[in-house]
Amino acid sequence: MSAKKDLRIGLIGTGFMGRTHSNGYRRVPNFFPQLAYNPVLKAVCSRNREKVQAFADQWGYESVETDWRALIARDDIDAVDICTPNDSHAEIAIAAAAAGKMILCEKPLARNVAEAEQMVEAAEKAGVQTTVWYNYRRIPAVTLAKQIVDSGKLGKIFHYRANFLQDWTISADVPQGGTGTWRMDVDAAGSGVTGDLLAHCIDTAMWLNGAISDVSAVTETFVKERMHQLTGKVQPVGIDDACIFHCHFANGSLGLFESTRYARGHKALYTFEINGEHASIRWDLHDLNRLEYFDHSDESIVRGWRSIHVTDGDQPYMDKWWVPGLGIGYEHSFIHQVADFLKSLETGEPCSPNFRDALETQKVCEAVIESANTRSWKDTGVQTFTM
Amino acid sequence: MSAKKDLRIGLIGTGFMGRTHSNGYRRVPNFFPQLAYNPVLKAVCSRNREKVQAFADQWGYESVETDWRALIARDDIDAVDICTPNDSHAEIAIAAAAAGKMILCEKPLARNVAEAEQMVEAAEKAGVQTTVWYNYRRIPAVTLAKQIVDSGKLGKIFHYRANFLQDWTISADVPQGGTGTWRMDVDAAGSGVTGDLLAHCIDTAMWLNGAISDVSAVTETFVKERMHQLTGKVQPVGIDDACIFHCHFANGSLGLFESTRYARGHKALYTFEINGEHASIRWDLHDLNRLEYFDHSDESIVRGWRSIHVTDGDQPYMDKWWVPGLGIGYEHSFIHQVADFLKSLETGEPCSPNFRDALETQKVCEAVIESANTRSWKDTGVQTFTM
Amino acid sequence: MSAKKDLRIGLIGTGFMGRTHSNGYRRVPNFFPQLAYNPVLKAVCSRNREKVQAFADQWGYESVETDWRALIARDDIDAVDICTPNDSHAEIAIAAAAAGKMILCEKPLARNVAEAEQMVEAAEKAGVQTTVWYNYRRIPAVTLAKQIVDSGKLGKIFHYRANFLQDWTISADVPQGGTGTWRMDVDAAGSGVTGDLLAHCIDTAMWLNGAISDVSAVTETFVKERMHQLTGKVQPVGIDDACIFHCHFANGSLGLFESTRYARGHKALYTFEINGEHASIRWDLHDLNRLEYFDHSDESIVRGWRSIHVTDGDQPYMDKWWVPGLGIGYEHSFIHQVADFLKSLETGEPCSPNFRDALETQKVCEAVIESANTRSWKDTGVQTFTM
Amino acid sequence: MSAKKDLRIGLIGTGFMGRTHSNGYRRVPNFFPQLAYNPVLKAVCSRNREKVQAFADQWGYESVETDWRALIARDDIDAVDICTPNDSHAEIAIAAAAAGKMILCEKPLARNVAEAEQMVEAAEKAGVQTTVWYNYRRIPAVTLAKQIVDSGKLGKIFHYRANFLQDWTISADVPQGGTGTWRMDVDAAGSGVTGDLLAHCIDTAMWLNGAISDVSAVTETFVKERMHQLTGKVQPVGIDDACIFHCHFANGSLGLFESTRYARGHKALYTFEINGEHASIRWDLHDLNRLEYFDHSDESIVRGWRSIHVTDGDQPYMDKWWVPGLGIGYEHSFIHQVADFLKSLETGEPCSPNFRDALETQKVCEAVIESANTRSWKDTGVQTFTM
Ligand SMILES: NC(=O)C1=CN([C@@H]2O[C@H](COP(=O)(O)OP(=O)(O)OC[C@H]3O[C@@H](n4cnc5c(N)ncnc54)[C@H](O)[C@@H]3O)[C@@H](O)[C@H]2O)C=CC1
Ligand SMILES: NC(=O)C1=CN([C@@H]2O[C@H](COP(=O)(O)OP(=O)(O)OC[C@H]3O[C@@H](n4cnc5c(N)ncnc54)[C@H](O)[C@@H]3O)[C@@H](O)[C@H]2O)C=CC1
Ligand SMILES: NC(=O)C1=CN([C@@H]2O[C@H](COP(=O)(O)OP(=O)(O)OC[C@H]3O[C@@H](n4cnc5c(N)ncnc54)[C@H](O)[C@@H]3O)[C@@H](O)[C@H]2O)C=CC1
Ligand SMILES: NC(=O)C1=CN([C@@H]2O[C@H](COP(=O)(O)OP(=O)(O)OC[C@H]3O[C@@H](n4cnc5c(N)ncnc54)[C@H](O)[C@@H]3O)[C@@H](O)[C@H]2O)C=CC1
Repeated sequence: MSAKKDLRIGLIGTGFMGRTHSNGYRRVPNFFPQLAYNPVLKAVCSRNREKVQAFADQWGYESVETDWRALIARDDIDAVDICTPNDSHAEIAIAAAAAGKMILCEKPLARNVAEAEQMVEAAEKAGVQTTVWYNYRRIPAVTLAKQIVDSGKLGKIFHYRANFLQDWTISADVPQGGTGTWRMDVDAAGSGVTGDLLAHCIDTAMWLNGAISDVSAVTETFVKERMHQLTGKVQPVGIDDACIFHCHFANGSLGLFESTRYARGHKALYTFEINGEHASIRWDLHDLNRLEYFDHSDESIVRGWRSIHVTDGDQPYMDKWWVPGLGIGYEHSFIHQVADFLKSLETGEPCSPNFRDALETQKVCEAVIESANTRSWKDTGVQTFTM
Repeated sequence: MSAKKDLRIGLIGTGFMGRTHSNGYRRVPNFFPQLAYNPVLKAVCSRNREKVQAFADQWGYESVETDWRALIARDDIDAVDICTPNDSHAEIAIAAAAAGKMILCEKPLARNVAEAEQMVEAAEKAGVQTTVWYNYRRIPAVTLAKQIVDSGKLGKIFHYRANFLQDWTISADVPQGGTGTWRMDVDAAGSGVTGDLLAHCIDTAMWLNGAISDVSAVTETFVKERMHQLTGKVQPVGIDDACIFHCHFANGSLGLFESTRYARGHKALYTFEINGEHASIRWDLHDLNRLEYFDHSDESIVRGWRSIHVTDGDQPYMDKWWVPGLGIGYEHSFIHQVADFLKSLETGEPCSPNFRDALETQKVCEAVIESANTRSWKDTGVQTFTM
Repeated sequence: MSAKKDLRIGLIGTGFMGRTHSNGYRRVPNFFPQLAYNPVLKAVCSRNREKVQAFADQWGYESVETDWRALIARDDIDAVDICTPNDSHAEIAIAAAAAGKMILCEKPLARNVAEAEQMVEAAEKAGVQTTVWYNYRRIPAVTLAKQIVDSGKLGKIFHYRANFLQDWTISADVPQGGTGTWRMDVDAAGSGVTGDLLAHCIDTAMWLNGAISDVSAVTETFVKERMHQLTGKVQPVGIDDACIFHCHFANGSLGLFESTRYARGHKALYTFEINGEHASIRWDLHDLNRLEYFDHSDESIVRGWRSIHVTDGDQPYMDKWWVPGLGIGYEHSFIHQVADFLKSLETGEPCSPNFRDALETQKVCEAVIESANTRSWKDTGVQTFTM
Repeated sequence: MSAKKDLRIGLIGTGFMGRTHSNGYRRVPNFFPQLAYNPVLKAVCSRNREKVQAFADQWGYESVETDWRALIARDDIDAVDICTPNDSHAEIAIAAAAAGKMILCEKPLARNVAEAEQMVEAAEKAGVQTTVWYNYRRIPAVTLAKQIVDSGKLGKIFHYRANFLQDWTISADVPQGGTGTWRMDVDAAGSGVTGDLLAHCIDTAMWLNGAISDVSAVTETFVKERMHQLTGKVQPVGIDDACIFHCHFANGSLGLFESTRYARGHKALYTFEINGEHASIRWDLHDLNRLEYFDHSDESIVRGWRSIHVTDGDQPYMDKWWVPGLGIGYEHSFIHQVADFLKSLETGEPCSPNFRDALETQKVCEAVIESANTRSWKDTGVQTFTM
């Protein structure tokens, strides 16, 4: 244990993601004891001193800050973890890069491509290690999907489809802006479901199936005006409540994506499916330990979709957990990403997706929004996507 | 078409089964045109002349009878189809055998082993072709299960489990006896769920997994008294509302069976599962076009239960129906049994299960009831079961 | 029975649909005995005399024709049923209308809007009763969906999504044109999956959710050339192998549709889902007796998607069939449409969808293809859709 | 934070359960910050010094012991957590009680009733707080089931059924005894699947549905001899590979239980179902965040089993975790039990099940084994079960 190197973390933002990441740092030493690096919870920052102190006590951070600039300025921080709303990602990340810190940034990388490009430039210029928390890649069933795709079992790919359906903003009484509902405020969020939910679908999709070349989208804002938390006034809603797009992948397959927060009955239904010449795969976040797999090479009379319960030791990450049949949860995807980030420090390999990879996802998001606004196809400008 | 031989049917009983069988006779020429025999709906019998005439008109029977003895006495009938409540099966079947008629009898063969043995003796002495409507064998997914078992894919069998769960008699207001509720009257039915529902499970089980050697059972009558339709009086209920038993099969596997009419939420949940050394199978009547199959020889990381949608032309009976993906229904099991019975006339093979096979099932039912009554294990006396 | 009026049918085309319709006519008297009209299988037509005679024998048609014009010319035919490939629908229907026959026409109504408009004009001018076999409406679970929508349980609708996924043309060896594969030949079919599969999805969608106003589509032809059965030559493929579109409904909801014959593992996966303010519905052809329903007004801790097994007597059409829990099949949707057509003759109400309704669906299909070809949004021109 | 009281834990056994419990102690402060007690990982014990030190390093225990007696003798331990094989539970627990320690003991409480009674006596005499790790009670969906039962929604109960199916000992090459396979050695384990798996099912069952009065069981040992790890010799197998029993509950309902390690395709399929007069419930460990619920009072045409995704803040324990739709895993049941144990120290209430509750479960297990051995019904001697 003494031989381990410390990675001193400074976390900014103590909301939902602040908790999942803190849990990630705390769990990794217990479940990935062989890693050479050990995360040290050096400091945590959010604006209210009392609340951030309570958070620090709860999670075991050594110290607190109320100004992220102060946190970045500290010498005893190796890596800055950005868990704040989207409108602050760019500013914080650029400052962190300038200070020579490694950066772990929440998704979407930024509100738009312009911000994202500056972040990439800053990080690359500084030569700092980066990663973006597109955490779904590291749910074992999803990682297994990648393994199956890479094995060539699917053959030529024809179709990719994904959706991310929620139902929590149907009521017109949900406000916009401020704590808890910054996602409804276009200034804070950059976009609605596109950056919030489709960004995940796009990241997974390009990881599994390569670059998305062009897109044709439609968006809708069902509730046109909502009270703004900060102004107290009813104001126009600037975000997309729902977004649908179809697209071409560079490999010739067709893509189909949908996201909404108005799908009554679905809390967080992220599903994807890939149809290849020889085999198909599908996955569903509501049953996250399972992967469905259809293999056309099975004997015809007993051929069918296989329901794979991804809980065996020879399946991705699962040697770290319990015994066959015993599932893990959502939070484990973050633990795995922490472990992979630490591992990347050992190996010198990037911990995908890094800022540059996440910029590509940002480009697709932006093309989607532009396509919807102009009612026309848009090229994404993404050429290749391999990480 | 002219070359076809007629099989002149006389049907007794115009209730639920009278309809499914009539439909079977009417459909076979359309879907099994290559059969050498053609069913002719010669006569139908039930006690009310007006009602039986309406039934004859609806289904195209040439004539009606109100006394089954008259029907059996007719020269123009080749085969008698018994669709009456259980208490009349023996008497009708024995008379039909004496008259040299082929017999298609509804299940359970009789109310008890004594009646069933007389029926077997009568039929065998008369040398008439028989079949008993344990129709579930001929649902394509179930027939496929048999095919898989026979292929040896499962290896040594360890477990067989089945249940048949309903919920229609929970109300104490459901009466017993008479039309519609003769199943609740032990004199008419012989037993409750044991003969009505478990008999199906036992037939399928022995067909798929061989003889059941001994049983240990429990039964329960939740509602102790019910109004009797015929007497108008509240009388003790003599049937088993629920029955559970475990057993040994001759092949060394363990069996587990349960049936009840008090399983709120289940209309007709007949399911079975077989666990073998190498593979397992399960099936569910509520989703009858599907068979689930687990094959341990699949590559480990992509191993899982396969959901086989049994609607392809190379799967049992399905070349007669539509195109892949398009399911058939409950009633088709009867059409298939009619077709197989007609085929058996061509080939001279028995159309399983015949009376003798059904007697074995009756023995298990009776041992189950006795076991429950005596709170002890009972040998069934069944040695082998291959049909 | 004697009081029944005959409806003398002349059926053209003895393939897949020739069989489902013939079965519909044969089954209706058995299961819908109270109808005032009785279908009489007067004549059947296809081009090969031997084959059509065999079909007539199998299904009980009184006579055969090998030229559909001869069939239409007959006095003893009341209604012409068109079960031929799409390229002949218009010509036959227009001739039938001119001859004053009622017309039951397979879907899609025609290859394109121009043909469809002529058919509507001819039928309306002749004042003949028409219906188009968008049969999925009459699967009980789908009819129940309509009932739920009409009850207002869903509230304001936000989303409609449907797909129809198949996998039978993945192999480049599948030919185009001629018997069995006319669907692959654009001249015979008019389009690929759009007219063949999406037409069903669009019909159901507009029936459940009203007019589709505008569409934005993409199509793909994965295998660019295939051998043509008639010429024996490898020729360009003119159909769409896959089609995806999103759209606006007149009621403000967003729609999303996808169809393909390259979705490995899916035989005939027609699914749809509607998300409303208060409740949602979804359905899947592979499990056709079930409807899933989510009702937000359920008590929160026990709220969830309900899996409704649509087999009870108080659910649409199910009083005609068996007992709760026992499912029916694909073919029953055609039996129900025959019954409803006969009923419409009694009541004088149209049997929806009629030619005019189906023309609206055709307009959407055509707008979809045009949108894909021009990479732009297209108005459908459909104003309202209520039938 | 400073105001918290320490609960100094001494853990014995560093295998599978040693890990789940250690994780429980580590997670509780992060997710249940409001608890008055704080678990302190004071010491951990297992026999190999090097291994136990590595475990201590990994999990943050302050010190190690290699003899459990030494651990119990320590003054700085408040509570002893027993995570060793079954044959040592009694000896360790009795010694711990004598030393005045609180005891958290793994299930089954002991190998048999005689041992269990001594443990209860010792603990009660010492007046120490106890709990037994029947952890499944604290999976949120299972706790919700309890809440529903207690609400009276189910009405009179008719049926309870549960199974626990595994497939890991099918190969005759699996040895018995020693590390990893002590479960196969009757001396170490007390029994086979009965104590290992059915004990869980029985605990949940009596918690949800009250006392089990009498049982009728069958057991089977499919592989009669296995190599013993400690002797290196092939020896008779003394455990039950499979066990099935039916029973009466004190409330008049029928029970049905099955467990096996020979159910090919099932890794850890623990399911249970309760059928009541008005409603039913079922649950499945392979999909642990879901509870299925059928409520007969739903409007009939839209009635069906509800699939409840138990991830909302108003459902048991879920306010401590993430957001709706995001599932948790198996390990969380142990975190919840730690939290509840700490809470019980605050409130003075027992943390069920305590030793006395677990003794009742032991009685049922023993009656089951005896029933199987004597092929007869056995009374369990359990009168009431409320905790
Ligand atoms: N990977 C994933 O699946 C998810 C990613 N996210 C992303 O994580 C980020 C945060 O989202 P949530 O945690 O859900 O939001 P949240 O609203 O729960 O938490 C945001 C936190 O940032 C703090 N904060 C805001 N401005 C700050 C400032 N100037 N200085 C310091 N602290 C500040 C707030 O006090 C709060 O603690 C967003 O970019 C979001 O898109 C969110 C949820 C899931
Ligand atoms: N294979 C299967 O899955 C099923 C088998 N059955 C079996 O079929 C038989 C009939 O059951 P259901 O059709 O459900 O009963 P049902 O009550 O619907 O019909 C019974 C019919 O028998 C007639 N009948 C009664 N006594 C008669 C007599 N002496 N002479 C002439 N007709 C008489 C009644 O009028 C009625 O038409 C039973 O043995 C039952 O166990 C029933 C349902 C399903
Ligand atoms: N409602 C539904 O779900 C379905 C609708 N259809 C529609 O039904 C129609 C027929 O399709 P299928 O039955 O699958 O095709 P098929 O290829 O199985 O049968 C077509 C029949 O038409 C006959 N035919 C072709 N040209 C003819 C002519 N000039 N005169 C007389 N007969 C002629 C052929 O001999 C053949 O019997 C198509 O419009 C198709 O789109 C098809 C399948 C399902
Ligand atoms: N609640 C639940 O769901 C589960 C409960 N269990 C129970 O937990 C107990 C342990 O099972 P596992 O963790 O699976 O076994 P395991 O074999 O993984 O671990 C047993 C541990 O006990 C240690 N040990 C054995 N004898 C010892 C001694 N004399 N002194 C100190 N340490 C000793 C071993 O070195 C090993 O670390 C059993 O009673 C078992 O029934 C096990 C698995 C699941």
